Amino acid sequence: MKAAYYNGNKEFKLTAGTEVAPGQGEVKIKVAYCGICGTDQHIFHGVMDKRVSIPQVIGHEASGVVVEIGSGVDNVKVGDKVVVRPLNWCGECPTCEAGNSHICTSLKFMGIDSIGAFQEYWTVKARILHKCPDNISLKTAALIEPLAVACHDLRRGRLKAGEYAVILGGGPIGLLIAMAAREAGAKVIISEINEYRLKLAVDMGFETFNPLQGDIKAHVMAATANTGADVVFEVTASAPGAAIMTELLRPRGRIVLVGIYSQPQTINLFNFFWKELEMIGARVYEPEDFDQAVKLTAEGKLPLEDIISGVYNLTEIQQAFESFEGNSTAMKVLVQCEQN
Amino acid sequence: MKAAYYNGNKEFKLTAGTEVAPGQGEVKIKVAYCGICGTDQHIFHGVMDKRVSIPQVIGHEASGVVVEIGSGVDNVKVGDKVVVRPLNWCGECPTCEAGNSHICTSLKFMGIDSIGAFQEYWTVKARILHKCPDNISLKTAALIEPLAVACHDLRRGRLKAGEYAVILGGGPIGLLIAMAAREAGAKVIISEINEYRLKLAVDMGFETFNPLQGDIKAHVMAATANTGADVVFEVTASAPGAAIMTELLRPRGRIVLVGIYSQPQTINLFNFFWKELEMIGARVYEPEDFDQAVKLTAEGKLPLEDIISGVYNLTEIQQAFESFEGNSTAMKVLVQCEQN
Repeated sequence: MKAAYYNGNKEFKLTAGTEVAPGQGEVKIKVAYCGICGTDQHIFHGVMDKRVSIPQVIGHEASGVVVEIGSGVDNVKVGDKVVVRPLNWCGECPTCEAGNSHICTSLKFMGIDSIGAFQEYWTVKARILHKCPDNISLKTAALIEPLAVACHDLRRGRLKAGEYAVILGGGPIGLLIAMAAREAGAKVIISEINEYRLKLAVDMGFETFNPLQGDIKAHVMAATANTGADVVFEVTASAPGAAIMTELLRPRGRIVLVGIYSQPQTINLFNFFWKELEMIGARVYEPEDFDQAVKLTAEGKLPLEDIISGVYNLTEIQQAFESFEGNSTAMKVLVQCEQN
Repeated sequence: MKAAYYNGNKEFKLTAGTEVAPGQGEVKIKVAYCGICGTDQHIFHGVMDKRVSIPQVIGHEASGVVVEIGSGVDNVKVGDKVVVRPLNWCGECPTCEAGNSHICTSLKFMGIDSIGAFQEYWTVKARILHKCPDNISLKTAALIEPLAVACHDLRRGRLKAGEYAVILGGGPIGLLIAMAAREAGAKVIISEINEYRLKLAVDMGFETFNPLQGDIKAHVMAATANTGADVVFEVTASAPGAAIMTELLRPRGRIVLVGIYSQPQTINLFNFFWKELEMIGARVYEPEDFDQAVKLTAEGKLPLEDIISGVYNLTEIQQAFESFEGNSTAMKVLVQCEQN
């Protein structure tokens, strides 16, 4: 079978991979599509070489079909359409025992810390599979993993119908949060500085704002009868995002920190006191977030496919990753791993 | 009657005040004791002259006895021992309508934004009075207002029995949080750099740690089987406190921001992502926090009086405030407003 190995130094090599027979509790999947995540791009740029084991197959936003099951597997059967929750937790640490295995203190993220999905067949534990109804296409199903991130973010922020949500950052995760928030009955505004992304968001029917061209605080205050937003989703991981997020909220408003900040940031803590704000970290997803993402996708109300900007064959994975370079308009790029 | 007016420039003037007859919904209190808060010391130092109306009677940690009631008052009667929740809210803004009148967008804090308690008689709205059982002394009752702050902080942090709480800062509020947390069944450690405060905390039976003399993160990790604290109460409003608070917590741990930071701080947001931390702002109190503080005080299990470091007569208010100057060992200083 074909498998794409990240080889370091912005290079993938397509070589013959090894199909792994599923052991006890394991399942072999024929991978259909696997999306490219921002984290995959970080790996491509060499900034995560300490976590990957070069050469390594990466990729974690996978859809596929079960082709073989190991002993003791009873949650899926051969032929099932599935998506993968790419987490490997210890099950024994205090965090796992407290029911928070998704942030297990020794969590291994599949496709980063271990072999991933950019290959024709992927053998994984059955416990991380979620079945998809037949009406979901395998291409759309590859968006369920990032949609589960968005569902987790909404849940962490306790977003309710009728609330006003500001989403700082209109990349794929920001747009998925926007879709899920709108579907949940919230009013949504997306703040973004990239004109292509702004246009895409507008085409999807979202209100947008370019904070380089106006005062976003004044805009949000005017839109909320001078009260402020209920929830801010910070998805930019930028210093301007960190600086403005506390300014946009009403008293008792919530910040959901979605962006991954590699550097400490300057934060207005007085606003936390004065308005009794909350800031809530959000990382990956829990099983119920995947269930919700599958449900939303099956209902077909979200314009998920609108964020797919390109589909490349596994044999073109180098070009797929290079499509993000420079002043790119790429949003969500999928790699078709199934070979005809 | 005697009344102490803050006159600007670190000066109080004791002059004849005017007793105010209670109007509709109002109550005249004979003030017994009023504690000096950190905020009062800020006023004394001139840094809040924009909010006070010099010359002004300040003070807001008051106990007293009802001596006269206006029309329509049915929650207290003449002779009742009471404490004052010194908040004046509009009742009409979206924050008040959402049930959060304690952070009303046009909140007036009595004793800062309007006349306070450093006088023999104080006329206030009946809606902010909490009755005290007879077994609470009026001197101890003056600690109920800061204890209500501590009760609010615990509630904001959702502290539960058996949890491990780190309290950064061992001043009066830090010690009151520690008392309430211990009474709630939490394990408590107080981090403090002032040797006098450390000794006082030790004398009250608390575990303490001086972060200038050791690695507090290593200490907390060792004490929690390498997991981290459940809740950090940040009461120092210091840059080192802001820097360390995210390091001490377990996954899904909570920070309660109690200290009032006048300057933005450098915060490790990666820790919020990685451990799904929460940071919760806390400001003053809600009615139920006062009820809880009255209840805890009436039960007599908290060593509240241990933090009273001095009692001055209203005629000595200048000395009372000056007792905090320099390398002071003053903790909670009370002003006796009742004149014999």
